[in-house]
Amino acid sequence: MSIITLTTDFGTGSPYVAAIKGVILSINPRATIVDLTHDIPPQDIRRGAVVLDDVAERFPDNTIHVVVVDPGVGTERAILYAQIGCQQYIVPDNGLLSRLARRTPPEKLIRLENPEYWLEPVSPTFQGRDIMAPVAAHLGLGIQPEQLGPLAESIGQLEWPQLRVAPGEIEGAVLEIDSFGNLVTNITTDALAGRPTDKRAHILIGEHETWGIYRTYSDQPRGTFIALVGSSNRVELAVVGGNAAAMLRAAVGEKVTVTWE
Amino acid sequence: MSIITLTTDFGTGSPYVAAIKGVILSINPRATIVDLTHDIPPQDIRRGAVVLDDVAERFPDNTIHVVVVDPGVGTERAILYAQIGCQQYIVPDNGLLSRLARRTPPEKLIRLENPEYWLEPVSPTFQGRDIMAPVAAHLGLGIQPEQLGPLAESIGQLEWPQLRVAPGEIEGAVLEIDSFGNLVTNITTDALAGRPTDKRAHILIGEHETWGIYRTYSDQPRGTFIALVGSSNRVELAVVGGNAAAMLRAAVGEKVTVTWE
Amino acid sequence: MSIITLTTDFGTGSPYVAAIKGVILSINPRATIVDLTHDIPPQDIRRGAVVLDDVAERFPDNTIHVVVVDPGVGTERAILYAQIGCQQYIVPDNGLLSRLARRTPPEKLIRLENPEYWLEPVSPTFQGRDIMAPVAAHLGLGIQPEQLGPLAESIGQLEWPQLRVAPGEIEGAVLEIDSFGNLVTNITTDALAGRPTDKRAHILIGEHETWGIYRTYSDQPRGTFIALVGSSNRVELAVVGGNAAAMLRAAVGEKVTVTWE
Repeated sequence: MSIITLTTDFGTGSPYVAAIKGVILSINPRATIVDLTHDIPPQDIRRGAVVLDDVAERFPDNTIHVVVVDPGVGTERAILYAQIGCQQYIVPDNGLLSRLARRTPPEKLIRLENPEYWLEPVSPTFQGRDIMAPVAAHLGLGIQPEQLGPLAESIGQLEWPQLRVAPGEIEGAVLEIDSFGNLVTNITTDALAGRPTDKRAHILIGEHETWGIYRTYSDQPRGTFIALVGSSNRVELAVVGGNAAAMLRAAVGEKVTVTWE
Repeated sequence: MSIITLTTDFGTGSPYVAAIKGVILSINPRATIVDLTHDIPPQDIRRGAVVLDDVAERFPDNTIHVVVVDPGVGTERAILYAQIGCQQYIVPDNGLLSRLARRTPPEKLIRLENPEYWLEPVSPTFQGRDIMAPVAAHLGLGIQPEQLGPLAESIGQLEWPQLRVAPGEIEGAVLEIDSFGNLVTNITTDALAGRPTDKRAHILIGEHETWGIYRTYSDQPRGTFIALVGSSNRVELAVVGGNAAAMLRAAVGEKVTVTWE
Repeated sequence: MSIITLTTDFGTGSPYVAAIKGVILSINPRATIVDLTHDIPPQDIRRGAVVLDDVAERFPDNTIHVVVVDPGVGTERAILYAQIGCQQYIVPDNGLLSRLARRTPPEKLIRLENPEYWLEPVSPTFQGRDIMAPVAAHLGLGIQPEQLGPLAESIGQLEWPQLRVAPGEIEGAVLEIDSFGNLVTNITTDALAGRPTDKRAHILIGEHETWGIYRTYSDQPRGTFIALVGSSNRVELAVVGGNAAAMLRAAVGEKVTVTWE
């Protein structure tokens, strides 16, 4: 049994997603296909990288994650097979793995160059359907990654906002905005370790400030702007019962500081 | 084989949904996971309760329905296992089962308090992933509900609009609006039993009126405002080929009366 | 093992879709259900027909495609079982198969009239749930199509824009707009065969023109309006890194010409 997840920027309901599923099931009818998400904003590689980093490792060992966020489709950019931790990935080599790889270096990197497992003729505009999908299906049937092509040496990188940790201050940034409008930062609980999270912690984003880092959305009255530790063990900024992104007019990349006197 | 459905307010395409699926499949790789819906408006418990009541019993016996519409996540509200009819539910105890329970009293109610089947450490902001998902997966593998925690005595209730049935008049309300803009009321075919549904029936919502309760959307010309018996055996208000909610500016909760002279 | 795909205009996240899945799994718990798309615009039979034509044949042989885009639900229009090529279809007879059938004539056409495989009582407003879903589930279990009802003679047709091919000119139309805003035309690579696709080819839509038919979206700088051969082997109009439909204010049906001097 094999589990294959799909992450794309095609939009939920896109027939392109259905085409990929059809191709996978034609080769491997017993594959369990799971939609990781198809709502990555068009060509937003950074968002894809963050989502993979958040979610992929929740899946069973050996899950195959196919990621089609691919503004360079049809150009010379490679398509990679990568094993990172206990998960497998099939991605265009454009930085999609660059967040995952910060935590765990890829163990096996292979360039998909062996057309034996592709769907011919390959459309230069839809290699997700014609290369990535059939390769994932064959991997699920048990072929070895080494059969897919030559070893690769490294993966594409993207610049990510740095977490600056000083004695009385941590400076980070908004990494993603979830569907409730909560602002998820790159400030981890590891970075907070040993520092008070009560009212002595002062959190600032743009002109908005709050004190204390809470446990749940319900620790303050409705409408209050709060900081809390979210489900990915990162500091999150929220408005209780509301949409922080809209109310604070905040965006991905915006600076967030936590200071202690 | 076990079937697990998911209902959330995370939005289709939310990576939080994918995280829940990953957790379930990590424990129970053969589970069949079905998205009931992820488009419950944020924190709209009432909508969640109506959708469950409409759809859950269409699934095979012993299906496990996981519902994460949970504005009180991380607070003292219980998480319940409930058996209602032939279906099983895992829900925060906030009223989500209150419509289903009007028709069929819950047979087995258990508070999820045994951490043995949880994913530790439990994030106080995402108990759907860390408590409800792993418990559902283990239930699908055959553990007994009694192993999950102590018996509970009752479920949380919500106020629902009453159906007032008098000799010449039925007064109800709009219960939900479907994706076509049809207004589904709480007026059941049972309430109509024995009364004429032809032109003698006068239906009123706000300032809009129509006569007769039809069988299909096609019984009148395009653009006509009509009443009909919908697929849940309830009176529904529709505009043929149009969107009744938009054209009538109607909302959930709005009063609907049917009168006979 | 049976694969059943679902195509509807209910909207992703509609509980009506979940009801259909519940009915299928109640009869055939081992069916693999795949969402082809639920985002057909309400009652847009033409869009449904185009999507089917694009995607259905990507699925394994004997896949059962259930299509519920059905403005005439409950009227006298038939519900058909059709075998076209190696795929099976269950559709209201309203033209949904009219594009597929241009390429491959249906081999077996049956009117669903035998209520033995239906879910009684059948709601006149939701035959997708009460007739089409249970019939698909039973087909997946191995009943013969001939058991479903009498043979039908023909399928409903829709008018489709003609492709006019002359020595120095091809005239077609926009057939669909994908989620990236790319304009997919009915001009096939077959129609282009033997003609130059370099700068000598002049493409015109409304007041917008471009020269040459490219291979990929990346063959020109960001923001450029280009023509290319898309993944369905049809000429596609795109704006590199942008949304052609929005930037050109183009719609389905709009005339597109390719001329050569």
